[in-house]
Amino acid sequence: MIYVTRRAHFSAAHRLFNPAFSESKNIEVFDKCANPNGHGHNYYVDVTIAGEPDPSTGYVIDLKKLKRIIEDEFISKVDHKNLNVDVDFLRGVIPTAENIAMACWRRLAPHISEGKLFSVRIYETEKNFVEYKGE
Amino acid sequence: MIYVTRRAHFSAAHRLFNPAFSESKNIEVFDKCANPNGHGHNYYVDVTIAGEPDPSTGYVIDLKKLKRIIEDEFISKVDHKNLNVDVDFLRGVIPTAENIAMACWRRLAPHISEGKLFSVRIYETEKNFVEYKGE
Amino acid sequence: MIYVTRRAHFSAAHRLFNPAFSESKNIEVFDKCANPNGHGHNYYVDVTIAGEPDPSTGYVIDLKKLKRIIEDEFISKVDHKNLNVDVDFLRGVIPTAENIAMACWRRLAPHISEGKLFSVRIYETEKNFVEYKGE
Amino acid sequence: MIYVTRRAHFSAAHRLFNPAFSESKNIEVFDKCANPNGHGHNYYVDVTIAGEPDPSTGYVIDLKKLKRIIEDEFISKVDHKNLNVDVDFLRGVIPTAENIAMACWRRLAPHISEGKLFSVRIYETEKNFVEYKGE
Amino acid sequence: MIYVTRRAHFSAAHRLFNPAFSESKNIEVFDKCANPNGHGHNYYVDVTIAGEPDPSTGYVIDLKKLKRIIEDEFISKVDHKNLNVDVDFLRGVIPTAENIAMACWRRLAPHISEGKLFSVRIYETEKNFVEYKGE
Amino acid sequence: MIYVTRRAHFSAAHRLFNPAFSESKNIEVFDKCANPNGHGHNYYVDVTIAGEPDPSTGYVIDLKKLKRIIEDEFISKVDHKNLNVDVDFLRGVIPTAENIAMACWRRLAPHISEGKLFSVRIYETEKNFVEYKGE
Repeated sequence: MIYVTRRAHFSAAHRLFNPAFSESKNIEVFDKCANPNGHGHNYYVDVTIAGEPDPSTGYVIDLKKLKRIIEDEFISKVDHKNLNVDVDFLRGVIPTAENIAMACWRRLAPHISEGKLFSVRIYETEKNFVEYKGE
Repeated sequence: MIYVTRRAHFSAAHRLFNPAFSESKNIEVFDKCANPNGHGHNYYVDVTIAGEPDPSTGYVIDLKKLKRIIEDEFISKVDHKNLNVDVDFLRGVIPTAENIAMACWRRLAPHISEGKLFSVRIYETEKNFVEYKGE
Repeated sequence: MIYVTRRAHFSAAHRLFNPAFSESKNIEVFDKCANPNGHGHNYYVDVTIAGEPDPSTGYVIDLKKLKRIIEDEFISKVDHKNLNVDVDFLRGVIPTAENIAMACWRRLAPHISEGKLFSVRIYETEKNFVEYKGE
Repeated sequence: MIYVTRRAHFSAAHRLFNPAFSESKNIEVFDKCANPNGHGHNYYVDVTIAGEPDPSTGYVIDLKKLKRIIEDEFISKVDHKNLNVDVDFLRGVIPTAENIAMACWRRLAPHISEGKLFSVRIYETEKNFVEYKGE
Repeated sequence: MIYVTRRAHFSAAHRLFNPAFSESKNIEVFDKCANPNGHGHNYYVDVTIAGEPDPSTGYVIDLKKLKRIIEDEFISKVDHKNLNVDVDFLRGVIPTAENIAMACWRRLAPHISEGKLFSVRIYETEKNFVEYKGE
Repeated sequence: MIYVTRRAHFSAAHRLFNPAFSESKNIEVFDKCANPNGHGHNYYVDVTIAGEPDPSTGYVIDLKKLKRIIEDEFISKVDHKNLNVDVDFLRGVIPTAENIAMACWRRLAPHISEGKLFSVRIYETEKNFVEYKGE
């Protein structure tokens, strides 16, 4: 079993707030992240596939193919976008790194046919990142 | 002469567009960066001071003091903000890295009394950065 | 289940030696790290919490809160300190990265009430790091 | 149980192709990586050892010793080499990161006597890496 | 005056040797870099343009345009190539970082029409890099 | 003219204080850095040589030779040392990054015979660095 990881990147705006909270509760919970006009990040996405290398190629999965899946199914929908407004699969979700990671997993999983999706990691900044393993 | 650099960080949303351009001209010029709902970045700011070290301290400038100036005069105004809407000293300016660097210089320069401000560098992503030296 | 990581940083001096060893045994085992006057590092600490995101916030744990716990319980005790002399919870312990990681875990664990502490990673240099998972 | 990681580095040329494939099949599968005259990378290798710290040293394994094993058994054989031609333990193997990681594991495992080898990670670029845990 | 930098990346094989030298002289001068079957690197290229921002765009140069020039004129010729064999503009040149930087400058300079080319930096590894400013 | 840079690394302890200052003045000026038992850093050193490439080698300076000079004249004296106590060429000097950079320059300059020493940069942390150009 080998774990193969491909890193991708996107830049996006977001705002953290819960419409069911009062304004002051939103500020108490989300602080600066609740700023009404939003802020943004350079996000990194690490997608890990687990599987056995194919003896005829030495690959668990062709990384060109994995790169294309990540690009088509996820990056192209979120890059240079506002995550609260522009992304249909994040509608109704508070766009925390946790929720982005789970949404990314759901977008990618049906398209991985060599090996299996093992982990999605989202880096929001150099100091904050989350990992989801589908459990 | 020694050049001393302090790095700071902020996360912000922005949108690149010129209200004097037509919508299609904005898209032609700014492409994905013109997305109406904005996007965002983790910005790094490198501020360089040039001067002679003070023999009694070995410092060109006390970095705690420089850190506080950068925080008070610049980072606190832009961190977790929307650069098109929330920042008075960027009003009427297209918030490209070039314009952010010049605005940062103008904010900091009056407060540097040990050594002199030599350069402001803004990293928008790992692949794009600009430098302004006040010339 | 989501794994959320927050990175913190401290700079400290340390010296590796075992007072029960002879001087030559200390040099044989710890080599340059046994230098009597000490040396030091910029340490990075990655603290990982595992849990379910709260549906009303999208957070496993509020990272501002986690940041404060790491700062209050660990960083403030070790930053700009000598790990052999200045830190009561390292008294009598050889301050290797292994021992620092276990001490950090014991400091943080009682304070994590959202999710559970999953891992503490200490980077001593870019080339050396250790991870402790409480097992 | 503590997981201790040491990072090493090498620069090497390689070419991905399967002599059992036709030329066009090689290009279809390996694309630019099949270029007949090869290309190359700066590889990073993270070797992780799992074990209990020795109470008399605070070490799971002496990193100087681990560094020497990695250097002698692996880095010295691959650094500034052509992985398709110059490395006897990669003979007959397509030098993908997957196959390099498994070969590295087999080279190192017999020499680890303090703790046990837990993982070998090979970074081919900043965006592509693989991990092998001997399973 | 603003200095705008765009970073690009390529992976390539090379071998350092001078055909006018004897084999032993090549080994004396170039050491491991003279290995007959070559080795390789992940190269980073930082291209800096100096100019005044256009008031209607806030750009010194459109980075999408600069990215395309770097890609078309340089990266596409060297990425996943052997620098001794596959690159016509490096023919007859020992492919040191110094010579690659000067060749890159000569490829790009005729295509820069907004601002002027100020510097080309080539990183061969994290520890070795060179800069050329056209002087 | 090409600028060639080699990066080196050392880990050291230091304490910032001026024996001519009172204890309270030292704390006022140097704050946490004045902690009596010291603290420490992983320092990076970037040494830049300016010169014309030798046409027979493509090198401004053989980096193996530069690496050896940096190692012999500087790194071996400061690595895993206490900069206040163990380093003769820092005796009587407050070991700020500024003073370390100037001391490093004076150690290296007499040994550079290919090209000329152009700059010494000392990174104390990722956020603080200084540069000295011999002026």
